[in-house]
Amino acid sequence: MSTPASQYRFAVNVTPKPGILDPQGRAVEKSLPHLGIRGVTGVRVGRRVELTVEAADAAAARAVVDKLAGEMLSNPLMELFVVEALDPAGPAA
Amino acid sequence: MSTPASQYRFAVNVTPKPGILDPQGRAVEKSLPHLGIRGVTGVRVGRRVELTVEAADAAAARAVVDKLAGEMLSNPLMELFVVEALDPAGPAA
Repeated sequence: MSTPASQYRFAVNVTPKPGILDPQGRAVEKSLPHLGIRGVTGVRVGRRVELTVEAADAAAARAVVDKLAGEMLSNPLMELFVVEALDPAGPAA
Repeated sequence: MSTPASQYRFAVNVTPKPGILDPQGRAVEKSLPHLGIRGVTGVRVGRRVELTVEAADAAAARAVVDKLAGEMLSNPLMELFVVEALDPAGPAA
């Protein structure tokens, strides 16, 4: 008998490392006065990737996400990533 | 005397609405076998914007972020956004 696999849903948040120039964030900051919005600083624009992993248990699923986040979804020289476990009932597609 | 303003840090998570085609997500899914990763489905690629708002209180700061997220950071026809309050000690730049 094989172990039944379960599905786990995660989000990977990828953001520019502190000190790395973030042109998109600067562009947002410069646009704010035109919208009449003041008092917003430190804008950093990154990516958020949500995905479902089928694995034997939560630890195995987490290992898959960590590998994927570090090797494919982020650039380790310029970006940080944080993995977040989501409610499995979230929208999958 | 004016009310002293405090700083609040937020993240805005923007994701494609369910049912909306997500070419970046499809591209990630198709690349996975080349990395030797199996069992990953439902990949959705969105944006994550982190920012600091200076406002009189948390409710006022949240109102600024909601306006910004709905009018500038997301396309309401194709995307959903979720605002998340962050630890103020997080990296601001």
